[in-house]
Amino acid sequence: MEASTPPAKKKLIADWKTLNRIFIRPEDDDNRRALFKHMEQILFGLHDFLQKHVGITEEASLKELADRFTDTLIQPHPEKRLSEVISDLVHQIAPHAVNVASPYFIGHMTSAIPYFMVHLKTITAALNQNVNKAETSKVLSIIEKQVLAKIHRLIFKMPTAFYDEHVQNPATALGCFTEGGTLANITALWVARNSLLAPKGDFNGCEQDGVVAGLQAHGIERCVILVSRLGHFSLRKAAGLLGIGNRNVLSIDVDAGNRIKLSALKQCLRDIQATQGRTRVIAIVGIAGATETGSIDPLPQLAEICAEHGIYYHVDAAWGGPTLLSEKYGHLLEGIHLADSVTVDGHKQLYMPMGCGMVYFKNPHILERIAYHARYIARQGSVDLGIRTLSGSREANSLVLASALQIMGSRGYSLLIEHGIATAKSFAAQIKKRPLFQLVTEPRLNILTYRVCPPEIKAELESADTLQRRRLNAYLNDMNRGIQVLQREGGVSFVSRTTLYEKNSLEDPIVVLRSVIMNPLTTLKILNEILDEQEKIYRDNYL
Amino acid sequence: MEASTPPAKKKLIADWKTLNRIFIRPEDDDNRRALFKHMEQILFGLHDFLQKHVGITEEASLKELADRFTDTLIQPHPEKRLSEVISDLVHQIAPHAVNVASPYFIGHMTSAIPYFMVHLKTITAALNQNVNKAETSKVLSIIEKQVLAKIHRLIFKMPTAFYDEHVQNPATALGCFTEGGTLANITALWVARNSLLAPKGDFNGCEQDGVVAGLQAHGIERCVILVSRLGHFSLRKAAGLLGIGNRNVLSIDVDAGNRIKLSALKQCLRDIQATQGRTRVIAIVGIAGATETGSIDPLPQLAEICAEHGIYYHVDAAWGGPTLLSEKYGHLLEGIHLADSVTVDGHKQLYMPMGCGMVYFKNPHILERIAYHARYIARQGSVDLGIRTLSGSREANSLVLASALQIMGSRGYSLLIEHGIATAKSFAAQIKKRPLFQLVTEPRLNILTYRVCPPEIKAELESADTLQRRRLNAYLNDMNRGIQVLQREGGVSFVSRTTLYEKNSLEDPIVVLRSVIMNPLTTLKILNEILDEQEKIYRDNYL
Repeated sequence: MEASTPPAKKKLIADWKTLNRIFIRPEDDDNRRALFKHMEQILFGLHDFLQKHVGITEEASLKELADRFTDTLIQPHPEKRLSEVISDLVHQIAPHAVNVASPYFIGHMTSAIPYFMVHLKTITAALNQNVNKAETSKVLSIIEKQVLAKIHRLIFKMPTAFYDEHVQNPATALGCFTEGGTLANITALWVARNSLLAPKGDFNGCEQDGVVAGLQAHGIERCVILVSRLGHFSLRKAAGLLGIGNRNVLSIDVDAGNRIKLSALKQCLRDIQATQGRTRVIAIVGIAGATETGSIDPLPQLAEICAEHGIYYHVDAAWGGPTLLSEKYGHLLEGIHLADSVTVDGHKQLYMPMGCGMVYFKNPHILERIAYHARYIARQGSVDLGIRTLSGSREANSLVLASALQIMGSRGYSLLIEHGIATAKSFAAQIKKRPLFQLVTEPRLNILTYRVCPPEIKAELESADTLQRRRLNAYLNDMNRGIQVLQREGGVSFVSRTTLYEKNSLEDPIVVLRSVIMNPLTTLKILNEILDEQEKIYRDNYL
Repeated sequence: MEASTPPAKKKLIADWKTLNRIFIRPEDDDNRRALFKHMEQILFGLHDFLQKHVGITEEASLKELADRFTDTLIQPHPEKRLSEVISDLVHQIAPHAVNVASPYFIGHMTSAIPYFMVHLKTITAALNQNVNKAETSKVLSIIEKQVLAKIHRLIFKMPTAFYDEHVQNPATALGCFTEGGTLANITALWVARNSLLAPKGDFNGCEQDGVVAGLQAHGIERCVILVSRLGHFSLRKAAGLLGIGNRNVLSIDVDAGNRIKLSALKQCLRDIQATQGRTRVIAIVGIAGATETGSIDPLPQLAEICAEHGIYYHVDAAWGGPTLLSEKYGHLLEGIHLADSVTVDGHKQLYMPMGCGMVYFKNPHILERIAYHARYIARQGSVDLGIRTLSGSREANSLVLASALQIMGSRGYSLLIEHGIATAKSFAAQIKKRPLFQLVTEPRLNILTYRVCPPEIKAELESADTLQRRRLNAYLNDMNRGIQVLQREGGVSFVSRTTLYEKNSLEDPIVVLRSVIMNPLTTLKILNEILDEQEKIYRDNYL
């Protein structure tokens, strides 16, 4: 990839003999040893690298790096041997990747994964099954159905008989795997849209006849989706994709705890009712672990409102879902079983490698509303899992999760989750203790936001009028943006940033530092070092 | 997973010490050796298995297997150690997976992959980057942009200056990676829909305001997508998802070579023109390697028609795209550079592990029509690749492709592609030579279809009238269905089946056996063995 790497000593030629060596799995001891040596290079090379670089390794700026990767011609002959490519990846590429496994990397929802996850992913790649159809996956389709049932049961807690009926039923589906939470949310809202715009008279349903015919058939002028201001941006993407229009995702105000404000939601529903059916709600989306603040909407109350109005209820638990594995904190997601569908990400708090999302449906028949068949696969009545998914061909990511659950047990996961929440709480206490900082959102789960806010400005803010407050916040916003960038560029630790809105007012943006505590090696000591560094950046640049 | 496996000797406990051992990458020699031993188990265990089972390993029926995977409770404590899980996977699970790497597995587009692909996937998993945002991927985002430019250049052959401008331009995108071809086709049609229903006056565009407002603003009543009968079913799925309605994917008849019939397409366009703009075409889709027959539409002529009518032109080259890497056969895709967008799958003829798709756009600004931003990532002006993709968080699959291109060179790939096409042609000749078989579609690429058709029925068919022909075909259809299932169940080799339609008539279905020759170890000798087996099944069951 990099133009600067020295050329291979001997010219490499693509010929049939080499190809055969590459394809035929090594049968003699020499080849076996080579194959194995390569894997050693990967495992130990990357291991050493990850150990050495505690931070996010900003050794070269993006722009500088970009200048080195500009060759756009595919060479006719091999440029490098596998061993050279691996060596490059370990020594040239990895140092410019982001060490998301560092305990000092607390800025995003990507973190260290247990090392066995790499082994499991290797197995998945080596088997190369395609779970789209049983003819290319067989037992993996069955394992996928089983693990879907396990997570469904964790969420919906239906009776045993229900699971006995559906766990391996080819005619029903308890959920599906996707590439990530975005596709999971899209799948849920796709089902919700088709549920509202269901077949009626001559109208064959939205999937077949389209949104326009659907609105006509049902006498609707506008469809909307309701979610709090903290809804993930994939929901707007879903509405745009589904032909609803992303402006029809209505942002409901949040309360002081960053949960959807029920009074605002109810007012919105009254406004909608006043249209006498001309505006209809496709879905209300509850959030279980908001991306920015980790907050959890009042799930039971949302369920009640949805039931009262006959509205589809989706819960985006991409982040918070696995909290259900914790006996101590599972109750925070009380009411989640009342949802019609729930998004859970594998690559977040189930600590799977990128990218794995899932969506679960209470009604095991509802995915029929997005079912597709073909002549050569996904035939009616087959167990082909591709019948009821957004994607077609798909890797057997379910094998990774199924195995991880066996290796970790729910207690293993709950230790991780409890560590994250407990550490976030201690971190919040530290932030409150330090005069230079202001905790902006308390950690409900393991996410919190705060900002650098010198004591004198804190005092000024308390007595400031609206205009003064805005001026002070604008100053703080610039400063926090600057501190976040300087710390990131420093390359030792990484905290992300986002913008929240004071009292739901778009005129009162508050730039905050955001930290996500999911790495079990992230200790309070490390978090204090991160705060120390921020204090130093403040002193060096803003005093 | 399997209830029948013996319990671990010692009760496993999930505690913090174990977790630490799992998360902290092994630092002492003992741990290193363990980590490594596990990988050895995987590489050699699976290797031995794949060598031993030449066929598709139907040792237990799906139903029987399903009965063993019905436990839906997540256990609190670990059920198994990693070594036990790996041992299970190798000895209990793999034998019930499908050996897609077998040279006798010629039924689907999933096949053997070069062993180095497993290494590359392992690296990708170990680095665990999320290319959604540069803050969690850095150099991997840059590598992705580079490899996108390389494939774009292979397809569109724009001048060097064009690539110099765009290869690392954060404001433009030459394409994007997806989970597979379905999501790639969806992305292309999403862009096409938004291009037709563009902002106009008060209308802010389809993405923001929705399909209904879009049709109103443009004075349109119906939007359609045109593709031949052999279009992949993901196109119908896309139309359903996008709110267009899947009945608005109009199937155009094919000619004797299974290419879109241009006269039929032109007639359809005349009918649409007669609506005076009330019906509009979102896109015409050309196929470069039809899933069922491998046929290639007349791409230059389709380009001409699209240009004449100002219609968006998408080419689904999920299968055929990599043929461009072959000097000998690249010309078969002549005219592909005239498309507005092109789908290419990585996990098909680029021999990457499941699941990798890509979509390329001639206009590097067009993906702006589906761009999304958020407050914490994907900010305006950033290099975050998640701004212009259907998915959010995404693994760095681009690293696998970038490395594979270095290891293989275009000649390496072209050897594989040329082997497939040449072998398919010889296979077709064998089929024609055998009296019991009838070649139904000639291999244009490396896919062909045929059926068992005894000589006496062949003779009868020649002089039969319509009704007699249908009766004979119905008999042959049943028989070929039966032979395909019996061969599959036999577990030595696998050919798939699909249904084609004689002279585009839905009343004249022809069930065919379909073979996809992509495994470089699939030789004519093996193909003859597969035909021999089919003859034997015929003699044993249908004589």
